Amino acid sequence: MTSTGEQVFDWIDARADERRRAGLTRQLRPRRADSTLLDLAGNDYLGLSRDKRVSGAAAAAALRWGAGSTGSRLVTGTTELHTELEHSLATFCGAQAALVFSSGFAANLGAITALSGKGSAIVTDAYIHASLIDGCRLSRADIAVMQHGDAAAIKRALETRRTEHALVVTDSVFSVDGDLAPLPQLAAACRDHKAGLLVDDAHGFGVLGEGGRGAVAEAGLIKEPNVITTITLSKSLGAQGGAVLGPRRVIRHLLETARTFIFDTGLAPASAAAALAALNVLREEPDRPSRVRDVAATLAFRLKDAGFRVTVPDAAVISVQAPSPEAALQWAEECRAAGVWVGCFRPPSVPDKISRLRLTARADLTDADVDRAVDVITRCAPTGAS
Amino acid sequence: MTSTGEQVFDWIDARADERRRAGLTRQLRPRRADSTLLDLAGNDYLGLSRDKRVSGAAAAAALRWGAGSTGSRLVTGTTELHTELEHSLATFCGAQAALVFSSGFAANLGAITALSGKGSAIVTDAYIHASLIDGCRLSRADIAVMQHGDAAAIKRALETRRTEHALVVTDSVFSVDGDLAPLPQLAAACRDHKAGLLVDDAHGFGVLGEGGRGAVAEAGLIKEPNVITTITLSKSLGAQGGAVLGPRRVIRHLLETARTFIFDTGLAPASAAAALAALNVLREEPDRPSRVRDVAATLAFRLKDAGFRVTVPDAAVISVQAPSPEAALQWAEECRAAGVWVGCFRPPSVPDKISRLRLTARADLTDADVDRAVDVITRCAPTGAS
Repeated sequence: MTSTGEQVFDWIDARADERRRAGLTRQLRPRRADSTLLDLAGNDYLGLSRDKRVSGAAAAAALRWGAGSTGSRLVTGTTELHTELEHSLATFCGAQAALVFSSGFAANLGAITALSGKGSAIVTDAYIHASLIDGCRLSRADIAVMQHGDAAAIKRALETRRTEHALVVTDSVFSVDGDLAPLPQLAAACRDHKAGLLVDDAHGFGVLGEGGRGAVAEAGLIKEPNVITTITLSKSLGAQGGAVLGPRRVIRHLLETARTFIFDTGLAPASAAAALAALNVLREEPDRPSRVRDVAATLAFRLKDAGFRVTVPDAAVISVQAPSPEAALQWAEECRAAGVWVGCFRPPSVPDKISRLRLTARADLTDADVDRAVDVITRCAPTGAS
Repeated sequence: MTSTGEQVFDWIDARADERRRAGLTRQLRPRRADSTLLDLAGNDYLGLSRDKRVSGAAAAAALRWGAGSTGSRLVTGTTELHTELEHSLATFCGAQAALVFSSGFAANLGAITALSGKGSAIVTDAYIHASLIDGCRLSRADIAVMQHGDAAAIKRALETRRTEHALVVTDSVFSVDGDLAPLPQLAAACRDHKAGLLVDDAHGFGVLGEGGRGAVAEAGLIKEPNVITTITLSKSLGAQGGAVLGPRRVIRHLLETARTFIFDTGLAPASAAAALAALNVLREEPDRPSRVRDVAATLAFRLKDAGFRVTVPDAAVISVQAPSPEAALQWAEECRAAGVWVGCFRPPSVPDKISRLRLTARADLTDADVDRAVDVITRCAPTGAS
């Protein structure tokens, strides 16, 4: 009898059945260019992705430089746009230097693995983003995971470690609930115990700090010699890609050793140009970040007032608890049918296993948009949500 | 005394010194839009990155859809362009389905980790790409690494494994020397021993197979129920991004579980549109792939004839051995000064620790370009290279 390989992936069907039974099936919802949905689900916090200054810069760069970067950053994949963007990001945030990766995910993997390794320690918060978790797993370091938000536990773990080198890894704004890490305490612990501090500011950059310089800048840590900041170009800057900001020697080290930098194709010129143009808009319109925060605060306050279990937003992300995965999904679907697109986070994407709607504020939402969103979310709420 | 964190990254300086002493320092060479260098270093094999049909599609998409996809593929990051591209890639290659990631690196990490795991086995070739290695490391599977090109050893490892599930992971065209994996033998071994076969066709897609359908299609394996193919959109298609091709249930499984799909921002609309346009060019001009292969063969033959240690190219990549890292670097620099841009691969980017020039052919290179390249490479050669 000839074997056919037909059964090799049969186990996949069993997993799919399990997810279906648990109400955890996912599906793509392709977006139309002329969609009229009110978007409270994306991460385009400053509303810049479709700003003509940004999309126009992307279009011009594609025509001038080509659609792709054609190679690794260390071979042909660095254009003058990339180095201009790196200089501009570093200058804007007040860091010594910056390095652009093809995604925030890649930036986190590259930075963590290049700054730790076998025989070193990593101490993290339990709720860090998947890309940080995967960076830690890849690093081969000894990893200690502390309860969410517990700076004292992180400090103790640094104190009692048996390795010389250590790195604390955290989000600034946690992506599910939108709450803030205790950056000053973490920085103090790292200073006291000679550790590096890597902060993923994906949801803080463009939203927090003076003119949107981010949570690390706001905490006064951006110039610290032991602090590394990672950001995305795909949220507040409305483009694609990620970057690492930090001391010149660290950035130089990443350029020479970070695997996701060396072995990945460089960011497309259109995305680099878009991020650069968005950064210029942010410089020219420094009030956009405070508008996002105001919208988020208003949304959260009004939903709390309506009786929902809502997080108090530290940035642009608001989480509204749902009674079950199925209820969260149905709630989100009904909001969508009523013209409001909200995120629906269910296990395994939520560290505490609580399903919820995840709303994101945008600088270009009007007061009428906020009214409409609150109205629809309230009308569509399942039993047990408030 | 207050601690300052100043010394935390002192170890980085020591590492930089080591690299400097070993002749392994790297630097970025920002490209100008109007560079007149003859490019034999990039991966734009079909010369499509700057084709107006491709770059024009990227520009139009940026204006129509915005500069970024604004979110994860499972939230707001899937536009109609993404699903059209996935359908088009699957149809073109003859696979049941496709899933687009933000990079080929991300596609490899996502596919390997979602298709293996603790208690399963992975068997690989020693020379696989860094992104495949990192996928294996992340998977927590038992990993067995076989000597380069040894299909019999891979077969034996599958036979003697103690786990039920197993996955063989390989490049189709190895990125350093451009040689081909023994795909038919690997596929037979996987069929016989009920294992999955994951093939990274980054350097085969667009270059090998009928009309550029790739090495997996050429080997008649693209429809096999246990075969998964990953490709990049950033080489032959001149854009950015990566994709996984395979049986519908596998693609569905990746959509629901692959961490680099779920937790990464979707590919920028401009890149998706560029890849789609490039695929259309490939359909309309099915002779481009054979032109790349002819250029590669001519380049290799003429360099071999000039006395260099050159690989016989199975696709578009040609490797020319250099006597040392320093000699390779100087050789590449002198070629560049003479107007020809060639890649320079040194440890740790080369698995066999042999430094070399790495040349890539392009469909739009003229015979005069090839003459010039051979002349310059020969003139700039260091002592000991031939």
